[in-house]
Amino acid sequence: MLKKFEIKTAKREELLNISAFVEKAVKESGVKSGAAVIFCPHTTAAITINENADPDVCEDIIKGLKKISPMDKNYAHIEGNSDAHIKSSLTGASQTIIIENSKPLLGVWQGVYFCEFDGPRTRTVFVKVMQL
Amino acid sequence: MLKKFEIKTAKREELLNISAFVEKAVKESGVKSGAAVIFCPHTTAAITINENADPDVCEDIIKGLKKISPMDKNYAHIEGNSDAHIKSSLTGASQTIIIENSKPLLGVWQGVYFCEFDGPRTRTVFVKVMQL
Amino acid sequence: MLKKFEIKTAKREELLNISAFVEKAVKESGVKSGAAVIFCPHTTAAITINENADPDVCEDIIKGLKKISPMDKNYAHIEGNSDAHIKSSLTGASQTIIIENSKPLLGVWQGVYFCEFDGPRTRTVFVKVMQL
Repeated sequence: MLKKFEIKTAKREELLNISAFVEKAVKESGVKSGAAVIFCPHTTAAITINENADPDVCEDIIKGLKKISPMDKNYAHIEGNSDAHIKSSLTGASQTIIIENSKPLLGVWQGVYFCEFDGPRTRTVFVKVMQL
Repeated sequence: MLKKFEIKTAKREELLNISAFVEKAVKESGVKSGAAVIFCPHTTAAITINENADPDVCEDIIKGLKKISPMDKNYAHIEGNSDAHIKSSLTGASQTIIIENSKPLLGVWQGVYFCEFDGPRTRTVFVKVMQL
Repeated sequence: MLKKFEIKTAKREELLNISAFVEKAVKESGVKSGAAVIFCPHTTAAITINENADPDVCEDIIKGLKKISPMDKNYAHIEGNSDAHIKSSLTGASQTIIIENSKPLLGVWQGVYFCEFDGPRTRTVFVKVMQL
């Protein structure tokens, strides 16, 4: 089953917890055991899995990624957002998770995040749930 | 269905658009709905998904990754290519994409890229297409 | 089939070769052709695929990641391990591999590694093996 949903990001760079969307997609699919691919169809955004408890971690991840891939006027791409394209490739366009007992098999501290690196924009996320 | 193809890289570091190979593998598989794993069996190369329109973006990604993981004489590995091994782990050995309506479900600006970090070499890519 | 195993890490940061666990899981599953998701349910650790021959490469990857995401007192997260959360998102919570002829389809130099970024701890790894 393929689910598509839209989210609105509010800043140039932020992490949005999309775990509830993923859980809903898994529940609605009726899949008991399998895997799910959470896919970002944008090239200046990404999907990651990280801490769901302290929001400071998301802020620190954004801060760290800004240091790792800073905006730089020496990049050739005329849109000026090459730092965001690089962050996208570093983080990854998708995450694959395991489904067990009709639920995403995540660690207790793990959440699934949409990573915005060149917002604010309206963005799309696909979740493919697979019975295996 | 498993497809294997070879590519020749021309530089130490470059991104090669392999979207056509992936599309062909999906088409030949006859899979209508599912997922595909695009896998790089090398440890100084990787697979990523990023912008397919302006080739400057690929150049900027290479430039950015060189700053993030520069060649460094203080690494222990005697082959002197540890920067490439690090780039490989940062970018990832594979990408998983969704297949819908017999086609890769990619964003309009997305292409699938083979990332060479220690070429030029002849390299192999595997595409596993899965009906789900 | 879902397999779970535990490993003990010995340092704050290290790469542990878990290829034997993955091979065993694939063998025990009886799956001949398919894919496997190797999933890390922790937010200060990750899974990567890299060189299995020279252990210096693992040391260099740790060294490189420490430069890319150093410990930094300016991070907000009170546990002081935000550098490890960032390393986790850069490397990735899972890797997906192809299974062919009842074995993981890895390159001759590739091994699957558990990446500890905030040890020593006892850690869990899940391997989901899927017939496709």
